[in-house]
Amino acid sequence: MNKEQLWQRYQDWLYYNEDLGFYLDISRMGFDDQFVTEMKPKFDKAFADMKALETGAIANPDENRMVGHYWLRNPDLAPDDEIKEAIIKTVQDIKSFSQKVISGAISPTGAHKFTDVLSIGIGGSALGPEFVAEALGTNNSPLKIHFIDNTDPAGIDKILAQVQKRLNTTLVLVISKSGGTPEARNGMIEVQKFYQKHNIDFSSRAVAVTGMDMNSKLEATAKEENWLAIFPMYDWVGGRTSELSAVGLLPAALQGVDINAMLEGAKIMDIATRKPDLKTNPAALLALSWYFGTNGKGEKDMVVLPYKDSLLLFSRYLQQLVMESLGKEQDLDGNTVYQGIAVYGNKGSTDQHAYVQQLREGVANFFVTFIEVLKDREGFSPEIETGVTSGDYLSGFLQGTRQALYENGRESVTVTIPEVNPTTVGALIALYERAVSLYASLINVNAYHQPGVEAGKKAGNSVLSLQNELVKALKNAPSALTLTELAKEINASDEIETIYKILRHLAANNRGLTLEGDLAKLDSLRVSYSS
Amino acid sequence: MNKEQLWQRYQDWLYYNEDLGFYLDISRMGFDDQFVTEMKPKFDKAFADMKALETGAIANPDENRMVGHYWLRNPDLAPDDEIKEAIIKTVQDIKSFSQKVISGAISPTGAHKFTDVLSIGIGGSALGPEFVAEALGTNNSPLKIHFIDNTDPAGIDKILAQVQKRLNTTLVLVISKSGGTPEARNGMIEVQKFYQKHNIDFSSRAVAVTGMDMNSKLEATAKEENWLAIFPMYDWVGGRTSELSAVGLLPAALQGVDINAMLEGAKIMDIATRKPDLKTNPAALLALSWYFGTNGKGEKDMVVLPYKDSLLLFSRYLQQLVMESLGKEQDLDGNTVYQGIAVYGNKGSTDQHAYVQQLREGVANFFVTFIEVLKDREGFSPEIETGVTSGDYLSGFLQGTRQALYENGRESVTVTIPEVNPTTVGALIALYERAVSLYASLINVNAYHQPGVEAGKKAGNSVLSLQNELVKALKNAPSALTLTELAKEINASDEIETIYKILRHLAANNRGLTLEGDLAKLDSLRVSYSS
Repeated sequence: MNKEQLWQRYQDWLYYNEDLGFYLDISRMGFDDQFVTEMKPKFDKAFADMKALETGAIANPDENRMVGHYWLRNPDLAPDDEIKEAIIKTVQDIKSFSQKVISGAISPTGAHKFTDVLSIGIGGSALGPEFVAEALGTNNSPLKIHFIDNTDPAGIDKILAQVQKRLNTTLVLVISKSGGTPEARNGMIEVQKFYQKHNIDFSSRAVAVTGMDMNSKLEATAKEENWLAIFPMYDWVGGRTSELSAVGLLPAALQGVDINAMLEGAKIMDIATRKPDLKTNPAALLALSWYFGTNGKGEKDMVVLPYKDSLLLFSRYLQQLVMESLGKEQDLDGNTVYQGIAVYGNKGSTDQHAYVQQLREGVANFFVTFIEVLKDREGFSPEIETGVTSGDYLSGFLQGTRQALYENGRESVTVTIPEVNPTTVGALIALYERAVSLYASLINVNAYHQPGVEAGKKAGNSVLSLQNELVKALKNAPSALTLTELAKEINASDEIETIYKILRHLAANNRGLTLEGDLAKLDSLRVSYSS
Repeated sequence: MNKEQLWQRYQDWLYYNEDLGFYLDISRMGFDDQFVTEMKPKFDKAFADMKALETGAIANPDENRMVGHYWLRNPDLAPDDEIKEAIIKTVQDIKSFSQKVISGAISPTGAHKFTDVLSIGIGGSALGPEFVAEALGTNNSPLKIHFIDNTDPAGIDKILAQVQKRLNTTLVLVISKSGGTPEARNGMIEVQKFYQKHNIDFSSRAVAVTGMDMNSKLEATAKEENWLAIFPMYDWVGGRTSELSAVGLLPAALQGVDINAMLEGAKIMDIATRKPDLKTNPAALLALSWYFGTNGKGEKDMVVLPYKDSLLLFSRYLQQLVMESLGKEQDLDGNTVYQGIAVYGNKGSTDQHAYVQQLREGVANFFVTFIEVLKDREGFSPEIETGVTSGDYLSGFLQGTRQALYENGRESVTVTIPEVNPTTVGALIALYERAVSLYASLINVNAYHQPGVEAGKKAGNSVLSLQNELVKALKNAPSALTLTELAKEINASDEIETIYKILRHLAANNRGLTLEGDLAKLDSLRVSYSS
């Protein structure tokens, strides 16, 4: 295709949303008209699925659940008044609570105002809030936010050290739908103990975001201990699409982010992506590109490159949204399909200096999503050279990289937003939620469950059971045991490798175990307990 | 393979390094003895290449350069005394300079001590320092470090706002081998102007890390303006292997990191990975795993999952090291090969909640590298449940995930280190540098050049030239022009799409341009200049 034809193709396919100042360009994906025609029946089905989902169908059949994240930004769409009112009330409660915290109307004993927020959660309860904090938080946010998003003791210590001096004025959010996610629960217990150690009351500084009337242990704890507040998560909102529920809105509001604008941006994008017409629906255009780029089978990776520092965490957010939704072994008819699309990326032009070498010349196993932000900064830009600013360089590198990749047969999509603000961030979230919904219909998978996540958790828990058993056995053992002897003792000869690893970990943490022998020869090891 | 056989395989292939307390387990990669035998001749060649490289051969033929990053941690290996002494002197200078800065012997006018370091650089001049700061920096580091690693104006503003109150006591490092990398140069100019605006002298707070006697513009500037100090980069150290040169050592030393221990860890690992014997050389074992996992052609991605928050940036560091080194269109004999291995990942168990669903059940286009850290934290861990700590959970999730993936036919490598400290971080860097060297030999590519990076830069620069031309034309135009007219005016009708994008960007940034018409219909647009 020569440059003139390319320019025509660019114009033909360019999507523009006036309300958002948002553009989507898929002209550098190499599909032709025939492909579009062939995809039409699939899209008709996808649009029908979307409509059914939005009107309250059980879109997640395995878990017998409705899928309602679209209602969050337009409660009028909710299937009944109870849901509608719950959504409206929660947003009001979040705004009212946040305003009181920021103004000092709600304040900790012994201080005028809260200064910090410590948010505890993992997965869908962390990635969205982290992305938004990086995108929209400023150095002048009314409360400074910190995240505990793992069960790593050293990681927890590092965050606690950050807030230690202001612990009295640190508000703690514990975010967990079921209340049973171990990482969130562990973080909460460690933080509780830290407050106790410093003789500061935890409950009056603690806020839960959790499922209500769903047997959440977190809800029970928060009520029992009389926490400062509880905000609801809903059965019909999955973790990875919960950023515009209390999960994301509460941390954002506490940082002074305009959550109405986030919701409004998402609502506008929802309207745009509700149109059952491929060419004028940006989420459908994205889904088309993904299907073409990966042959509908995840044959290529999606490399996400926002040319804007504040969007650094968008690809991590998308990793969950895309990979957990689409990465499925079976389709909705029970066929084995091994679906998904791998997502990675950090930011441009930084990543040009990291791995554009491979993107341009190496294994061609990807397509790129460029995210362009038109506005460079608040205020005036100095000239770096005559007539040229650092923002011109950033823009030039994006265009240049897109072009250099295209010349080497590497395809790309370009999303353009006028600036990074609550409206456009809400719109980006909504765009990708819908693109995932539509693409899942195209490939006929359930985008709303995650059956494979349980397996790792179960396997993790069985490792902990084994640990309890072997420690008990060692305490009772009259003398040091070999690995084989210990495994036999607890009837777990099959699990000898796991046993070895548990022992190695415990021995490294002064937990009363001693491993003796040649560490390179595992059959020489003898283990004993002495505490 | 049943569990007993698997345990035997685990023991047979487990690598242990006593000096480092380091383990490598490749038993969950599915190669058999025949594969190992077949690979032997390739490894013999790789070991021979390694030896030649270490003794000063021109290992980077395209650029006619020696490849000497191994000499940095063992100067006795350097091919001549001049190089040897330069290495030793630089490390001494870095330590002496850093100690003086930390103690206040070197201090800014009007204050006792420097408080912050602002490091400006991109790619190899940022990823290593950022990784090490995250891994080894603490809340109590003597100087707090900040990074400008892009040419994003808003990103620069955010970092400058962080240091604004302490600008007088902020030391600036500008890191750029050639001095010509635009992102670093732009960052430097913006920071210089910011100091000027605040009436604080820049030169007496500025340090350059750059190529000496290599016509570096940065060297010239630093000398001309009489900067506080200049540290050398060497012709024979590539950006992506420069973490243990002044590029990485200076920022680390200023944060109080023991750089001798980093170098020592790397030196010990270099010795271990210098052994021309596959089974007892951990880098060779890694290279073998990569070759098997990707069929020697990058057919699968490398997902890197450190179960330790402080190693979060290791995969970003490895993206450059691995992808820029291996992602090549041609092999050393000029055959078109499209090589490489895509690398991504953040940290466990956080990523379990993001995309283990896809890893376990979805498209099987990857192998995993787990990184296990035995020590949980400094000091005592509270119990979360009887006998169980949050660190036990982290460890259990790693084992559980590895096992759950294996049961579904997803392969993995596990690297185990006793703790995250300067020695083990140095060792990890050296391990992967060598694995990349060896793997490049196996697949016969030049790991030390990056011909594809230039294309994006050139394309970027040509966008900026076009911008200058079109602004000039618009200033001279008597009335508003259509895109077509403007393109014709500057003899760039082929570049109309790029012209449109330049205009859109300039118009969004109050640069004197006005775009009028229907923004969705590009042929309706008319552009004029009025400033």
